[in-house]
Amino acid sequence: MFKFRLLFSALLLSTGMTAVASEALPTVAPAPADNPTTPAKVALGKLLYHDPRLSSTGTVSCSSCHNVMLGGEDNRPNSMGVNGQTGGRSAPTVWNAAFNAVQFWDGRAASLEEQAAGPVTNPIEMGMKSWDDVVARLKTIKGYQAAFEEAFGDANAITKANATKAIAAYERTLITPNSQYDKFVNGNKAALTLQQQKGLEKVQVLGCTGCHSGPAFNGAGSFQKFPVIPNGYFEAQYHFSKDLGRAEVTKNDADKHLWKVPTLRNIALTAPYFHNGSVKTLDTAVKLMAKLQLNVDLPDQDVADIVAFLNALSGDFPEQSMPSLPPTPGVTFN
Amino acid sequence: MFKFRLLFSALLLSTGMTAVASEALPTVAPAPADNPTTPAKVALGKLLYHDPRLSSTGTVSCSSCHNVMLGGEDNRPNSMGVNGQTGGRSAPTVWNAAFNAVQFWDGRAASLEEQAAGPVTNPIEMGMKSWDDVVARLKTIKGYQAAFEEAFGDANAITKANATKAIAAYERTLITPNSQYDKFVNGNKAALTLQQQKGLEKVQVLGCTGCHSGPAFNGAGSFQKFPVIPNGYFEAQYHFSKDLGRAEVTKNDADKHLWKVPTLRNIALTAPYFHNGSVKTLDTAVKLMAKLQLNVDLPDQDVADIVAFLNALSGDFPEQSMPSLPPTPGVTFN
Repeated sequence: MFKFRLLFSALLLSTGMTAVASEALPTVAPAPADNPTTPAKVALGKLLYHDPRLSSTGTVSCSSCHNVMLGGEDNRPNSMGVNGQTGGRSAPTVWNAAFNAVQFWDGRAASLEEQAAGPVTNPIEMGMKSWDDVVARLKTIKGYQAAFEEAFGDANAITKANATKAIAAYERTLITPNSQYDKFVNGNKAALTLQQQKGLEKVQVLGCTGCHSGPAFNGAGSFQKFPVIPNGYFEAQYHFSKDLGRAEVTKNDADKHLWKVPTLRNIALTAPYFHNGSVKTLDTAVKLMAKLQLNVDLPDQDVADIVAFLNALSGDFPEQSMPSLPPTPGVTFN
Repeated sequence: MFKFRLLFSALLLSTGMTAVASEALPTVAPAPADNPTTPAKVALGKLLYHDPRLSSTGTVSCSSCHNVMLGGEDNRPNSMGVNGQTGGRSAPTVWNAAFNAVQFWDGRAASLEEQAAGPVTNPIEMGMKSWDDVVARLKTIKGYQAAFEEAFGDANAITKANATKAIAAYERTLITPNSQYDKFVNGNKAALTLQQQKGLEKVQVLGCTGCHSGPAFNGAGSFQKFPVIPNGYFEAQYHFSKDLGRAEVTKNDADKHLWKVPTLRNIALTAPYFHNGSVKTLDTAVKLMAKLQLNVDLPDQDVADIVAFLNALSGDFPEQSMPSLPPTPGVTFN
């Protein structure tokens, strides 16, 4: 199989053909039937997403760890929640998360709506005791009363379900189109450098895009084992296998070390890498993936070509206005 | 004196005249000769202001505690810096800080530039070991190289002095004009309700505006003693005197319990109150100020009128675009 791949690769490089159909990133994300995306919902979701008052200390918002001013995360191995606490996993980027079939590294949320509910009441993330407490707090903020009512057309609209719907609606607008890759796929053959084109062919031929498939290079909600090939040397260095992945949720041995396939979009902007954020650079991440998933010792030149291509997956961040959060006169958070 | 004030007050209320000349908030802040405000500097300062990578953990930006999406601070008694640490003082609002003659509660910084340098290397705030470390980190971020060069026209522009100049230039744009009070002062007599007009007269007649003077109601860089009148009952409740204020900096007994006069602009949006953030509501803050500074037991109706007036000092927050921070590929913060 490996020999075939190399042969195939040589063939592709010589003919310039691409191995699989390539697609540009859609500019609109699909929304579930019970949560159509509307401007009022997006506006409310943007407020909630940036509001640190959704945390027990009033210091951590969704955007603290999934920072939309950066690559949609925090550039940390693992995020820092309320009172300086840290967890074991690295924050995935919120950019293009709308194109993930499941959410969280272990895929335990089936939708953005479901995902949005989690961190708020996680004791080491946003630390609220319950969503009832969140709703009670939001109700003390006059401006939210109006914003929820406008978004959901109901005077009693401040609920957990509506808050998470609004956040998800906002997140569905966080799409980064127009990467060099997208321009290339849309017909501008000069959009990728020759090295980037080589890198593109290599990720296809090596088999990276077998899992990192589709326009967001994130599989279609598929789970994959990582690492596939046990390697004591790297395990000692990076501790990839300490975390059981999907099995931590399902308690099913067959799910041990299964992970949601993460997007490669904007990967150059979201160091450090892997579920535990243990790898600092993209070069090393590419090398490790080749070795641990495909049993390939990737030559430095190939690594460089692939990294060059991955850089072409950084898209345009849409212009956003800064939200002005509704005030809470006379309320304090300890 | 107190009797005279009451008499004078009655007189004013009956004639409708105002006690002192009133001024609307300027819409442009003065800049020091060596740091004229330019669009490129403001743009760079906005990036730096919102960049959590200016902290040791990569989690705390200027805007974390002086949140421009809120009332320019964090609605907490005291702010939370890196690793969940807290200090003893409440974050002053950044909105209209450009009109303060001195900065920090104890006035220890003579300019916004000087202020901006402080929290970055404060171990319980942003926790960077030194500005040399900050500069070294900024130099690893390619986009900052270009932004500093554009702002300061120099290829070696990434310095502490330039970073703080840029932040100060951005802060000079954080002005909130067009409050109901400003509209009133500019001739629209319907801009204040009758109760707010009564409240305005009361703050003037009682003497509040003796210290909270000028268009920003922040004195002209003057220091004032707080509390003026010792009160064991309130001290036991709020511990105002634990902190020596300006004397902590000057080590001069004469400066004990002296504080910079804080602005009243947007005061309704910046609970909790006082240097230690120990007072949760504006009503209580007004009552305490009357008692501890003027020895007046303010009737509830007067408190209500004054609070109504103070609400008229909430201005318009300017529309801002959300900055897109330059990426740090392959660099992580622990």
